[in-house]
Amino acid sequence: MTLDQARALDGRDRLAPLRDRFVIPDGLIYLDGNSLGMLPKATVERQRAVVEREWGERLIRSWNEAGWIEAPQRIGARIARLIGAKPHEVIVADSTSVNLYKLLVSAAKLSGRRSLLTEAGNFHTDLHIASGAAELTGLRLDIAGRGEIEARIGADTNLLLLTHVHYKSAERFDMAAVTARAKDAGAITIWDLSHSAGAVPLHLNRDGAELAIGCGYKYLNGGPGAPAFLYVAEHLQEKLVSPLRGWMGHAAPFAFTDDYLPAPGIARFLAGTPPMLSLAALESGLDAFDGVSMEALWEKSIALFDLFERLMAERCPEMECITPRTPDARGSHISFRHPHAFEIVQALIEADVIGDFRAPDVARFGLTPLYLRFEDVWRAADTCAGILATDRWREPRFGVRGAVT
Amino acid sequence: MTLDQARALDGRDRLAPLRDRFVIPDGLIYLDGNSLGMLPKATVERQRAVVEREWGERLIRSWNEAGWIEAPQRIGARIARLIGAKPHEVIVADSTSVNLYKLLVSAAKLSGRRSLLTEAGNFHTDLHIASGAAELTGLRLDIAGRGEIEARIGADTNLLLLTHVHYKSAERFDMAAVTARAKDAGAITIWDLSHSAGAVPLHLNRDGAELAIGCGYKYLNGGPGAPAFLYVAEHLQEKLVSPLRGWMGHAAPFAFTDDYLPAPGIARFLAGTPPMLSLAALESGLDAFDGVSMEALWEKSIALFDLFERLMAERCPEMECITPRTPDARGSHISFRHPHAFEIVQALIEADVIGDFRAPDVARFGLTPLYLRFEDVWRAADTCAGILATDRWREPRFGVRGAVT
Repeated sequence: MTLDQARALDGRDRLAPLRDRFVIPDGLIYLDGNSLGMLPKATVERQRAVVEREWGERLIRSWNEAGWIEAPQRIGARIARLIGAKPHEVIVADSTSVNLYKLLVSAAKLSGRRSLLTEAGNFHTDLHIASGAAELTGLRLDIAGRGEIEARIGADTNLLLLTHVHYKSAERFDMAAVTARAKDAGAITIWDLSHSAGAVPLHLNRDGAELAIGCGYKYLNGGPGAPAFLYVAEHLQEKLVSPLRGWMGHAAPFAFTDDYLPAPGIARFLAGTPPMLSLAALESGLDAFDGVSMEALWEKSIALFDLFERLMAERCPEMECITPRTPDARGSHISFRHPHAFEIVQALIEADVIGDFRAPDVARFGLTPLYLRFEDVWRAADTCAGILATDRWREPRFGVRGAVT
Repeated sequence: MTLDQARALDGRDRLAPLRDRFVIPDGLIYLDGNSLGMLPKATVERQRAVVEREWGERLIRSWNEAGWIEAPQRIGARIARLIGAKPHEVIVADSTSVNLYKLLVSAAKLSGRRSLLTEAGNFHTDLHIASGAAELTGLRLDIAGRGEIEARIGADTNLLLLTHVHYKSAERFDMAAVTARAKDAGAITIWDLSHSAGAVPLHLNRDGAELAIGCGYKYLNGGPGAPAFLYVAEHLQEKLVSPLRGWMGHAAPFAFTDDYLPAPGIARFLAGTPPMLSLAALESGLDAFDGVSMEALWEKSIALFDLFERLMAERCPEMECITPRTPDARGSHISFRHPHAFEIVQALIEADVIGDFRAPDVARFGLTPLYLRFEDVWRAADTCAGILATDRWREPRFGVRGAVT
């Protein structure tokens, strides 16, 4: 496969015009949209408007006039379309960590069972939040290897917490099968969709998912630290009460009553006043998905993966691919193991090919079909081959670690 | 007092030039800076830079390059100066509600005492969060009238939760006296500084305060729903572990370990990834306090209050002032009771005088010395007098309630 052949693939790509919805720095090959999505052009104008007009000129009146007060529900409904949920089953609030805590603590009370089961090597914030929630609710945190999870689901399993697509390897659980297995055993599954939403087709309702949370700043392009989302299936909403009983989740937030009465439906999972500037960026970020189906995006993701995986196997064989080749078994990124993955990623970044390093030895590359070209993927593999062939990653500056590595 | 006399006061006001640090719409008299502070001019440029350059061009690299990763500590240290705390005792994160929850649940474990004592009519999110935290930690939520609080502090009081300046009446507790009274009884006080920070001089260290939280979008001018702050006195930091154990509060967030190890010091109270766009706005909002002492701002607040209170007493005697006249006993807003406060506030808003209504019968006006003139206060009272004299507030449109009222 030559660069010209990769360009020919771009020429035939029906999704190619979507790239024009994003601000893309010249010469940058950005394979990190699974960590921080690129800036949508619509967001530039929207941010200026929310800061300079809505806040600056209209001030407090914008809570009503500009619809700030309904933003968590309105944006949630737009995310619902991307994950196969009903509009009133999703809300945007707080961070993924805080939303996970809300679901764990409130759902733990639905039964007297004692075990909260999750995966060893799950994204660490999920494990840490789970340990805190377990401690407070008197649950036992059971951590099992990926291969043993299903066998460990039993009569004492209260909650099963899983990340749908693994942040490191991109391995994907079969949502329908695992949820059904847990449900048969009387347990409830909480899905972390951080590396799935906006990346792979999701069908939460069809697959029987009851509880889920996910991230706004990765594939949803909501900006750095964008608020997160939270999904509660309709039939569970009235049974759960959030431990974080903030005023925005009250049935009558502006009645200023001493007693807490949870709002009907999904709104009860709101807590404090939401960060509107960040929320507005998430909303305009979702515009990039307008008129596109998740199925079409996924089809392109598969093609990008196949090309990159093949080129890396040919030209960088010392990088060991740890992501499943079967599309149904993975998400939209690809990861490679190498003892010097850290230095290799730094050398790639210097060459304007941005991926990221995940401790202890993984180089991870996000494949985001909204703005990536086949040409980009070709160039990324070519650059990596050059770095490996010349041992350039051994230069001392690539070994220096920053605050975020 | 005539308009010309009010203008003469502005002419002699040494803080008058600070107004130029803000975007102020023509003709608007904004007495709602205690609900949503005005837009600082510095924030307009800063937001464009964080969106268009740091996110748009530098993308993920900005976590290190632009110092995003240290923003919660850096901004906390700047707030520390305004509230009389050490730089490493304050951090910015999440919302006021979520931060209050962290402190309540973690501090509840410091003793075996059973009572969480707070004030009836406290800001409702504090009461609701307290009820959730009490339920989970096995505490009893005791709610007492303002006058009985001190007498109710006793041998079973674990935590005392008070709002320093009341959101409705602006009544202020004596922080040093109440904290000492609680400490003598073996209890810990948590102060909600939402209506105090950036409004009245605070001396948390001097006054013996141990725990506090506060709001970023009121007097600190951080923008709609700006992240909140959290204060933990140095000697308590290592004794508390947040129930919300998110990755940003881990001792080694990028080591991706399964086990939770809280960061040393105040950073352990971080949870998930912070909303950077909103955080950046809070940081540039604080620039408006550069080179100004809280004492000088408070002196002007007193003068604005005295003028407004006198004019309202003379010209709008049917509005009953419920805010203490003694400066030490109040914050930086003034409130009036009237059976038709709602309609009167709506009529004022239509006349470009923005205050707000607080159920059931209070009209509330924020006096923000950074950008308010004596002329504004004069005009506000004059407009109110006109509305009352002509019964204009009785026009039906002023009775219509929106989502936020």
